[in-house]
Amino acid sequence: MNSAELIKQIEQKRSFLCVGLDTDISLIPSRFKTEKDPIFAFNKAVIDATLPYTVAYKPNIAFYEALGPAGWESLQKTMEYMPKDVFSIADAKRGDIGNTATKYAQTFFEPARAGFDFDSVTVAPYMGEDSVTPFLQFENKWVILLALTSNPGSNDFQQMKDENGIPFYENVMRKSMEWGNTDQLMFVIGATRTDYIAKVREIAPDNFFLVPGVGAQGGSLSDVAKFGMNSRVGLLVNSSRGIIYAGDDTSLSAAREAKKVQEEMNQLLDQYYK
Amino acid sequence: MNSAELIKQIEQKRSFLCVGLDTDISLIPSRFKTEKDPIFAFNKAVIDATLPYTVAYKPNIAFYEALGPAGWESLQKTMEYMPKDVFSIADAKRGDIGNTATKYAQTFFEPARAGFDFDSVTVAPYMGEDSVTPFLQFENKWVILLALTSNPGSNDFQQMKDENGIPFYENVMRKSMEWGNTDQLMFVIGATRTDYIAKVREIAPDNFFLVPGVGAQGGSLSDVAKFGMNSRVGLLVNSSRGIIYAGDDTSLSAAREAKKVQEEMNQLLDQYYK
Repeated sequence: MNSAELIKQIEQKRSFLCVGLDTDISLIPSRFKTEKDPIFAFNKAVIDATLPYTVAYKPNIAFYEALGPAGWESLQKTMEYMPKDVFSIADAKRGDIGNTATKYAQTFFEPARAGFDFDSVTVAPYMGEDSVTPFLQFENKWVILLALTSNPGSNDFQQMKDENGIPFYENVMRKSMEWGNTDQLMFVIGATRTDYIAKVREIAPDNFFLVPGVGAQGGSLSDVAKFGMNSRVGLLVNSSRGIIYAGDDTSLSAAREAKKVQEEMNQLLDQYYK
Repeated sequence: MNSAELIKQIEQKRSFLCVGLDTDISLIPSRFKTEKDPIFAFNKAVIDATLPYTVAYKPNIAFYEALGPAGWESLQKTMEYMPKDVFSIADAKRGDIGNTATKYAQTFFEPARAGFDFDSVTVAPYMGEDSVTPFLQFENKWVILLALTSNPGSNDFQQMKDENGIPFYENVMRKSMEWGNTDQLMFVIGATRTDYIAKVREIAPDNFFLVPGVGAQGGSLSDVAKFGMNSRVGLLVNSSRGIIYAGDDTSLSAAREAKKVQEEMNQLLDQYYK
């Protein structure tokens, strides 16, 4: 999916919500457990319920990988079921040297390989340019690079300042912006502190940000929109547990929670986007 | 596997060789391609050929993942076949927040999950403490943390100096040594520059290093031993393509190349280890 199509989806649905499919067999309602593929059945129910309110889905690959080959099959079925006009994110946080990075890119971008046709993959920057650029060789596919994450450990290294007082995450952003353009490179930006949102928007005025950590994990959606929205929206805000595990009746509760977020996003789009 | 068992293996085999199972369907000899599971058949031939000369095997997960569920099955079969007294490394370079890191750890460490019982996993440090410590909760299992890698992109961020002139990889090493002890934490250290080996050994005198980039990718084995070996050996040196793709007759050529490396390691152990 290219940026024009993504922005069109946001404008049509009046939403920049991404639903995280962190599907955990121990957390899904019991009625799914009698299905042949409980993980897929649950994901299907979540997709059906939330599709009118969301523009993106983000399966966290760890949850599928932990189930072995069967988990990968559940993920394949989920991605086959997913409509082509929503933006899909393989939250894999991969990062390895050139030829291996190519393998990871093929895994998620080339259907003939592992059966996936994701629009984007999250990538970790530690190993530098040749660990990122192989993902940028695919047309209309995106790298979503870890920049400033929202977990406690983000303070350990990401905030570390270089000799010029520039934090590490800023160096990651500035350097990677030389490798890919704003139609193929997004950043993961945690929403835990409002002042950071304004700062990273200054660093990368035109890139999309994938923002986790709104809602249950802290961070205010209106602040993210106020300080983070740009002339092409430039935001995808993720919610996982707050939507998919909102209640035992997944179809009703996931729709209700997604709709609630979408309604707030609709107002924020009115306020900050044309 | 604990450190005493690993050191015992090294002493018995007079080798600190790790064979990288970067098994690529497009690179294996054609006779394996008629087998039911070509990847497993090839890995089995490599293991049979190299077992007398190697103390560790390191499948790079990307190569299996890129084949979808079938690739994970080939990896499962490979790991089932692997003798329990060699050290196994899931080269996955995972790194994600707490609850997700736990999923990744379960994937590779808990046989009841995805069917794997690896001794260790390579982990990326970018997300900090809570992305690493979940892997350290498993007895006799190891984290092999990316510190100084051997690829060109390692210069982009790992060498970046902080306000006190300390490079980023050194900060990663020093900080992570507070999280795990020398019986559960190793570091990935590229062997491309000899002076670095001496320096990282100073930073982490007692940790094991997993050293890629010896041989084809540059770096001298004798320099690695001279500057990197410690009182418990402290080194695992990886070779992938130079051994597994050494010739069309995998059984003979892989054994020959592994034996060649083992013989050099035998001499280096004589010289630098008790």
